Amino acid sequence: MALLYKSLSRRVLLTSAAMKRRITPDARQILLSPPLISIDFPDIWNSSSCLDYSSTATSYDDPQSTTVIDGRVIADEITSGITSEVRRMKNSMGKVPGLAVIMVGERRDSQTYVRNKIAACEEAGIKSEVSSLPDNCTEDQVLNVLSHFHEDPSIHGILVQLPLPQHLDEGKILSSVRLEKDVDGFHPLNMGNLAMRGREPLFLPCTPKGCIELLIRSGVEISGKRAVVIGRSNIVGLPTSLLLQRHHATVSIVHAFTRNPEQITREADIVVAAAGVPNLVRGSWLKPGAVVIDVGTNPVEDPSSEHGYRLIGDVCYEEASRVASAITPVPGGVGPMTVAMLLLNTLESAKRTYSFT
Amino acid sequence: MALLYKSLSRRVLLTSAAMKRRITPDARQILLSPPLISIDFPDIWNSSSCLDYSSTATSYDDPQSTTVIDGRVIADEITSGITSEVRRMKNSMGKVPGLAVIMVGERRDSQTYVRNKIAACEEAGIKSEVSSLPDNCTEDQVLNVLSHFHEDPSIHGILVQLPLPQHLDEGKILSSVRLEKDVDGFHPLNMGNLAMRGREPLFLPCTPKGCIELLIRSGVEISGKRAVVIGRSNIVGLPTSLLLQRHHATVSIVHAFTRNPEQITREADIVVAAAGVPNLVRGSWLKPGAVVIDVGTNPVEDPSSEHGYRLIGDVCYEEASRVASAITPVPGGVGPMTVAMLLLNTLESAKRTYSFT
Repeated sequence: MALLYKSLSRRVLLTSAAMKRRITPDARQILLSPPLISIDFPDIWNSSSCLDYSSTATSYDDPQSTTVIDGRVIADEITSGITSEVRRMKNSMGKVPGLAVIMVGERRDSQTYVRNKIAACEEAGIKSEVSSLPDNCTEDQVLNVLSHFHEDPSIHGILVQLPLPQHLDEGKILSSVRLEKDVDGFHPLNMGNLAMRGREPLFLPCTPKGCIELLIRSGVEISGKRAVVIGRSNIVGLPTSLLLQRHHATVSIVHAFTRNPEQITREADIVVAAAGVPNLVRGSWLKPGAVVIDVGTNPVEDPSSEHGYRLIGDVCYEEASRVASAITPVPGGVGPMTVAMLLLNTLESAKRTYSFT
Repeated sequence: MALLYKSLSRRVLLTSAAMKRRITPDARQILLSPPLISIDFPDIWNSSSCLDYSSTATSYDDPQSTTVIDGRVIADEITSGITSEVRRMKNSMGKVPGLAVIMVGERRDSQTYVRNKIAACEEAGIKSEVSSLPDNCTEDQVLNVLSHFHEDPSIHGILVQLPLPQHLDEGKILSSVRLEKDVDGFHPLNMGNLAMRGREPLFLPCTPKGCIELLIRSGVEISGKRAVVIGRSNIVGLPTSLLLQRHHATVSIVHAFTRNPEQITREADIVVAAAGVPNLVRGSWLKPGAVVIDVGTNPVEDPSSEHGYRLIGDVCYEEASRVASAITPVPGGVGPMTVAMLLLNTLESAKRTYSFT
């Protein structure tokens, strides 16, 4: 056990060191996150492995040195790796990855998200297509568009922009996305494979995948650490908790029924806030030296801003940045990573389709 | 939020009260556990819902009143409900549920488990069939037997006795069990549907389902409580943590990489021990008044016992029973419930097949 544990630590240290090298056009190095199967070490319990560990108290004695984890810079680095790979694929076989987005209704926030995704595709040389359906469309109409993209060999990834209007059965629609093109990773079979040791999902959901990559690139060791995930949504909280667990964190999931969220969160070395509640996590919720990943993107009115609103996170940044050892800003933290991971999933899907290595 | 929370509490109280009524032959009353979808309340966060809760300190001031949760008695009650339902089905349409067990190799413990399951089927009037394959059989041979049972309309549930010999791909074999007959609930699609809110798996894995039913029948409220699951196996720890979360517990998962398992476990109102390590959980790991479900069944040599060994749990019973408010014994706790839930899943599968209500 001790040996396994050490070898895992070494791996993480190695990859943290590797991040300092320039990302080469080799796709295997676009991410530093390892394949899940490769980190499925056996659980070998014995009294000493459980009891002889030293205290988890984080050695954090310099509150002035909080690192701001710059998601834009990291995402740019990843996107440039993706762009090189797309170019290599195009030069080598005349094909590029293709992403289809299905959008129902005219939510302004969804429109912004979709616009960002399409722009990022263009920049990376990934083909993209948007199918917009009216707010009052039927389930069959959505399923028809899905079928159309399933049949289209130039499309390697399909994403249904959420949330869908109330009258549509989101579960049914997401379960209808063909697994091989489910670049959002929201199909329950994919989720089951993420949850179960010894299985590798075809796609990791983009936001959780981005959170882990942010942690690894920031030199944060996950294995053996206490992680608290705040929020248990199917698209962020749940898969993030499952993914952290696959990385051997000791995970607790805090949700709206949790009686003392601040107390539990204060025990965590790693906090992922994904509740969708502005400023929910205060400085007092954090252990000094904790690493904070803020997934929240909550619009709040702001007449002084260009669009009349601005985005704030689930974490009260001013307070948290005085306590945490590292923190992601909003915007500019997890958001850009989510988009980069979508591009990467689409690239990986195309590579799988064409057996391009 | 407050309203929802209260209505959930009331539901649980009602079902706890309902348990005192005689189990009628109506299948809907065999279990007190509600369908998962029915308890998928929305997470409505607000400062007050998070911060105004009172402390979770368990009011446990009578260490002499530890309840021993008698899994045999509860399982018998459930099995008698199942037996009535099987009889009603037979009288009404001339059909009975059928269970097929695939067993590879000759592990003594597996043989005992299979024998127990078959005996329980017979007692309940459920048809059963065992297909035994040699230890050195091929994957194709197992898959062929699976196919055979898939085609057999008199078989409504198929279970592959685990563990399989090393040379067989357990993941591949379990993923090949047709969903409609996957009474063990180990298919990754089933696991994904268990994990995701708004989804209902076709079958709940038997041991986790049994644990929840034991809690509910013992009058333990799950919602809002802190639960620690020790162990993260695909067949017990993982699905139990997911199921507790669907019941709105705040769940932490302790595993062999956890640095201070005793400290985390001591925070829990509900402890489910499923590590497979004899006597791992000591009295000092428990908060006074915690409810302890011991899933461990570890054989230890005992020359004085009939078979030369006896089963002990993951929990040091002598110590724990002095601290816990309620505890399951080993044997006679979770074990009988697992078998009862297997019968129930098989019955439910047959009912679904024949649209028998």
